[in-house]
Amino acid sequence: MATIVKTSFLVPQHSTHGFYYSSRLTPTTACLPSDKKKFAGLAVAAAEGNKNEEKDIHHVNGEQSNGMIHKNEFTKSLSFSGEKPNTPVLDTVNYPMHMKNLSIQELKELTDELREEIVYTVSKTGGHLSSSLGVTELTVALHHVFSTPQDKIIWDVGHQAYPHKILTGRRSRMNSIRQTCGLAGFPKRDESIHDAFGAGHSSTSISAGLGMAVGRDLLGKSNTVISVIGDGAMTAGQAYEAINNAGYLDSNLIIVLNDNGQVSLPTATVDGPAPPVGALSKALTRLQSSRKLRLLRETAKGLTKQMGDQAQKVAAKFDSFARFAAGGDQATLFDELGLYYIGPVDGHNLEDLVYIFQKLKSMPEPGPVLIHLITEKGKGYPPAEIAADKMHGVVKFDPTSGKQLKSKSDTLSYTQYFANALIAEANHDEKIVAIHAAMGGGTGLNSFQKHFPTRCFDVGIAEQHGVTFAAGLATEGLKPFCAIYSSFLQRGYDQVVHDVDLQKIPVRFAMDRAGLVGADGPTHCGAFDTTFMACLPNMVVMAPSCETELMHMVATAAAIDDRPSCFRYPRGNGIGSILPENNKGIPLEIGKGRLIREGSRVAVLGYGTIVQSCLAAAQLLEEFGILITVADARFCKPLDGDLIKRLVREHEVLVTVEEGSIGGFGCHVSQFLSLNGLLDGNLKWRAMMLPDRYIDHGAHSDQIEQAGLSPKHIAATVLSLIGESRECLHL
Amino acid sequence: MATIVKTSFLVPQHSTHGFYYSSRLTPTTACLPSDKKKFAGLAVAAAEGNKNEEKDIHHVNGEQSNGMIHKNEFTKSLSFSGEKPNTPVLDTVNYPMHMKNLSIQELKELTDELREEIVYTVSKTGGHLSSSLGVTELTVALHHVFSTPQDKIIWDVGHQAYPHKILTGRRSRMNSIRQTCGLAGFPKRDESIHDAFGAGHSSTSISAGLGMAVGRDLLGKSNTVISVIGDGAMTAGQAYEAINNAGYLDSNLIIVLNDNGQVSLPTATVDGPAPPVGALSKALTRLQSSRKLRLLRETAKGLTKQMGDQAQKVAAKFDSFARFAAGGDQATLFDELGLYYIGPVDGHNLEDLVYIFQKLKSMPEPGPVLIHLITEKGKGYPPAEIAADKMHGVVKFDPTSGKQLKSKSDTLSYTQYFANALIAEANHDEKIVAIHAAMGGGTGLNSFQKHFPTRCFDVGIAEQHGVTFAAGLATEGLKPFCAIYSSFLQRGYDQVVHDVDLQKIPVRFAMDRAGLVGADGPTHCGAFDTTFMACLPNMVVMAPSCETELMHMVATAAAIDDRPSCFRYPRGNGIGSILPENNKGIPLEIGKGRLIREGSRVAVLGYGTIVQSCLAAAQLLEEFGILITVADARFCKPLDGDLIKRLVREHEVLVTVEEGSIGGFGCHVSQFLSLNGLLDGNLKWRAMMLPDRYIDHGAHSDQIEQAGLSPKHIAATVLSLIGESRECLHL
Repeated sequence: MATIVKTSFLVPQHSTHGFYYSSRLTPTTACLPSDKKKFAGLAVAAAEGNKNEEKDIHHVNGEQSNGMIHKNEFTKSLSFSGEKPNTPVLDTVNYPMHMKNLSIQELKELTDELREEIVYTVSKTGGHLSSSLGVTELTVALHHVFSTPQDKIIWDVGHQAYPHKILTGRRSRMNSIRQTCGLAGFPKRDESIHDAFGAGHSSTSISAGLGMAVGRDLLGKSNTVISVIGDGAMTAGQAYEAINNAGYLDSNLIIVLNDNGQVSLPTATVDGPAPPVGALSKALTRLQSSRKLRLLRETAKGLTKQMGDQAQKVAAKFDSFARFAAGGDQATLFDELGLYYIGPVDGHNLEDLVYIFQKLKSMPEPGPVLIHLITEKGKGYPPAEIAADKMHGVVKFDPTSGKQLKSKSDTLSYTQYFANALIAEANHDEKIVAIHAAMGGGTGLNSFQKHFPTRCFDVGIAEQHGVTFAAGLATEGLKPFCAIYSSFLQRGYDQVVHDVDLQKIPVRFAMDRAGLVGADGPTHCGAFDTTFMACLPNMVVMAPSCETELMHMVATAAAIDDRPSCFRYPRGNGIGSILPENNKGIPLEIGKGRLIREGSRVAVLGYGTIVQSCLAAAQLLEEFGILITVADARFCKPLDGDLIKRLVREHEVLVTVEEGSIGGFGCHVSQFLSLNGLLDGNLKWRAMMLPDRYIDHGAHSDQIEQAGLSPKHIAATVLSLIGESRECLHL
Repeated sequence: MATIVKTSFLVPQHSTHGFYYSSRLTPTTACLPSDKKKFAGLAVAAAEGNKNEEKDIHHVNGEQSNGMIHKNEFTKSLSFSGEKPNTPVLDTVNYPMHMKNLSIQELKELTDELREEIVYTVSKTGGHLSSSLGVTELTVALHHVFSTPQDKIIWDVGHQAYPHKILTGRRSRMNSIRQTCGLAGFPKRDESIHDAFGAGHSSTSISAGLGMAVGRDLLGKSNTVISVIGDGAMTAGQAYEAINNAGYLDSNLIIVLNDNGQVSLPTATVDGPAPPVGALSKALTRLQSSRKLRLLRETAKGLTKQMGDQAQKVAAKFDSFARFAAGGDQATLFDELGLYYIGPVDGHNLEDLVYIFQKLKSMPEPGPVLIHLITEKGKGYPPAEIAADKMHGVVKFDPTSGKQLKSKSDTLSYTQYFANALIAEANHDEKIVAIHAAMGGGTGLNSFQKHFPTRCFDVGIAEQHGVTFAAGLATEGLKPFCAIYSSFLQRGYDQVVHDVDLQKIPVRFAMDRAGLVGADGPTHCGAFDTTFMACLPNMVVMAPSCETELMHMVATAAAIDDRPSCFRYPRGNGIGSILPENNKGIPLEIGKGRLIREGSRVAVLGYGTIVQSCLAAAQLLEEFGILITVADARFCKPLDGDLIKRLVREHEVLVTVEEGSIGGFGCHVSQFLSLNGLLDGNLKWRAMMLPDRYIDHGAHSDQIEQAGLSPKHIAATVLSLIGESRECLHL
């Protein structure tokens, strides 16, 4: 048992609402529209708080970070010994209702205990660590002031929901998080009535929250709706669309901008998160730094007051400069869009958070409010605070050191093979450029960027823009590769159709995380890409059966310069196939598959890495004396008609296999068979694919079992089709 | 021939660069980062221009509109007599190169002639009128100063491209616009090297332009890239994503914000365009009105100067007020996102436009610049200026009066039947609400809004937000109907998957403009919706065969409250089927189709309004003595398994027919057939669908012919399948 020593209490006479101010402070409240005057109290309170704060600031040697001065928030030395932490306050909290009567001091102790609990449990399971540590105070303050499930808290993306899960009846199941049959890694409506909206993809929380707020008003209810969104997620167009609509509808909605200067996307591999790109990031930095300039300006004003009236002109000029440079109390981007902006606020100051939320709760008609919090990812857990990736997504780790227990593999991830192949192509062709949407780590393009810093573009969480931007690059004769996860490309679909395919512009789409993705679950499952890409007239659609084929397909896509192309590859590691020299693939003949193994009666035609499972199934069947043919389609579009005709001619049964939804490869084969009259006779054709339901998070092997796509399932399907159903029992 | 009288020349000594100013004028240039100092000249010039202008303004009784004072721009009385206009200057301009040496006076005459030419030709063809009239000066100024195709002009959405087409070698073909084999209604890369990027869907121009600008820089070229985007299009998230990225990359790119206070979407029916919604619109209005406040402030400053130093403090306060209220020369939304903002500028002042573009062209490194133009839709053509819809999209009309020659129909559009049915449902169920994305006219929801003003939500051009917003509403127990064109729903696809279907939230999608859409062409063709919606596990997917069935499906969707649903219906008018009483449909049994006509040997199973063509095919075949079965599937998901089994049992041939792409209804039927062993025997199954290519704009009947989906094509397919190929020749 770790010894717990309480080291530092906040001085009680300290300002209770010190560390924030409103964008419409004293100089501007005079001209607020009447419906905004209700804020005057909060603004004045904030201003007074500021005054106190300002007095203090000159005497406080606090930790400075993100331009904010962090006080020593912890009530004790946090213990990360690896032993089950002592959590006397947390032990009394099963649901938010148990937090209502806690004092500020007790709430602070609760945040300490939550941090210890999160580090303890995640060290044993792996998962998303630092986002949760960054919102511990926020979560406690929200659940103390507001009452879910009547009040709605919507966590954007959802990595940060661990403290929320612990405080809403799921503490005892945290040891199962992201595992088969365990808790989901994201908020999930099915899992708890306290999860107002599911998440996984970024930037949806304001839209959903606004819908809930408007719904509440239509039904005459009076609960509060809070959307918590990160600064990375703010770069997505949907967030802007939602803010624009919120400002217009003027509904009562609280948006908490959790500004930690990081994009926290589900990269789960490679380098982890990165600072958000885009000009918005600069604007937020200006807002953050405005506190300093505000102090500077106040000082200057004081000075000029002593100097008398003649100096006022100088002061006005200085004022103008400060406003311009700092975005001080002038209208911010958010004000312009109709939100009432409060900030920046220290997101680790529990007292301030509770004070602000209580004030807002007591206002009958606050309208749409944005509270700009400055937080730190990994806050309170030293190994996360100092880590380059802030320990965003981790496997099991040693809680004392933070050292992760990464398992070694003989092969690299498909992601890395893709990156290596693209680097090889780019070495030979200077027109190759790469685009990703805030996923340099997840897509492997960070490696590409190291080689070609001027030829790699991170557009932010902005798949829509990224796709059309790539189209623009291609019209100039460049050869863009857009690396976007299969499930995220859904967000750029209209641009793929309208800006790329319709104009037959040669953009190459590298669709990572195709098929089932394990612990991240259905939000990130790449189920639909073959369906929604192969229906497009001009698109070449490919999937490699192994990492060597992936490298050849990168080369193929580079060579296809008269129309768009795409290729999908899965999460996980390669099979250890022999790589081409210097990782430089050789372009494949377009629309040509290959026979891998020849047998009789039954042909299995696989598309993608599931070809390996087809081969494993053939192996299983060999034990029954059944020799089947296995072919690798390589292309869903254009199909290899000659290969298919040959398979049909020489076999009684054709089974197509893919790790994707209905409407994809199997559908294209069936249309080919039908149009060529190949289904009119006695051929038995079956299409194996993902089932028509979402498959929960869990081990990839469990998911494959649930999907019915394991080698055993393929072999059993073959056996039953040739009338050997009894043999299936032996599988 | 109309008599042409020149009535008003601009006074030559008038300010050549008067009617705009920069957001970073004198007070702020001092603190510009060094790379922005290059603008100081332009800013100072603008300020000087303003001074002259201000002197004038007090003495000019100009036409006042949009808060801007428009001078009398026309060099002559424009003539819209219906006779071919006299166009001596335009006759000398076949390509932009012919405009380079024209004087400002000649360029003005060119704009007059362009307006007459556009009204003359569009009156004979129909098409998009007022957007083009609104950008006539802009188009002339751009082509005078810049040199396409080396310089790139990207027209967002593309309705406004008619003067651009006339000036780039296509004048003689303007009489074929939007017709089969004629010019496209939008910019199209295939049509001209002067069309840098195709358009149709909104808000793509900045992304494409940024791609071209970055591509140019990578290739060491030095051309100019100009994206022209409307204020309506600015509400879409993609525009924000692109601006955010442009501000970050700091490439040289000119964005022209064509602010006419209107959304100009391709509604093509009902009420036409509407003012943009969203808070951005208010912000732009503030920018427009800031000119007035600027004058006010200058006056106040003058006053206080006379009063002496003591009054400076008052002036400073007033200054602060003016900045706050007007968004004057403080940082705007666009500044915040890293663009250099110039505006507002009178978009009908050719001299000013030419001056600004020339200045920008002469700057080696302007960075990303946004020029905010104020324009008027329909400018210069009185019937358009006064029309409620500004004559946005028109059929043939009388040029003298502007009166459109609308053909009468006995039936309403499917759009209107949908709206009527939804109103009937909403009368019975107060939880029904409607959402559209800036398409109140096009989706018919303007009618709904008239009945239920608090239950209809126009979210702006923001399909992404609209879908998740609807999901939020549904979680509160409301029953949202999202009415979005099939091709525009592509832009909200990720939200349909991730926020709606995965969470099994009952949002209803009314997918208008499904299938081929006639004159708008492939950008607006609703080809892919069945494919991308029916692959989603929880979605109920329907299509009505006539307007009565549509009304039943609206009722069905209203009744489905445990999962999402969607239904697709085409552009065009109903067939005259008998409507349910008071337009109130009766919910259909989910997953049940219907037999319409019983025959033998061949069953045709239609999905959607193409069932009518199946019936017409049956009629044709009857003439050959062949009686076929025709069934209406109603549901693509869940399929009517019983119906399909019966059709297979009783017939030799099953033909599925749909007006959609591969991967849709036919694919789902084939998977059902295969899994049930129904393809293992001698059944002949064929799937008729849209071909695997984009079909150009033109008459809908021509498109259907090209697609091979006419009654004759269906009948011919049947004949050939039953070995009566010779009979096909008689069709």
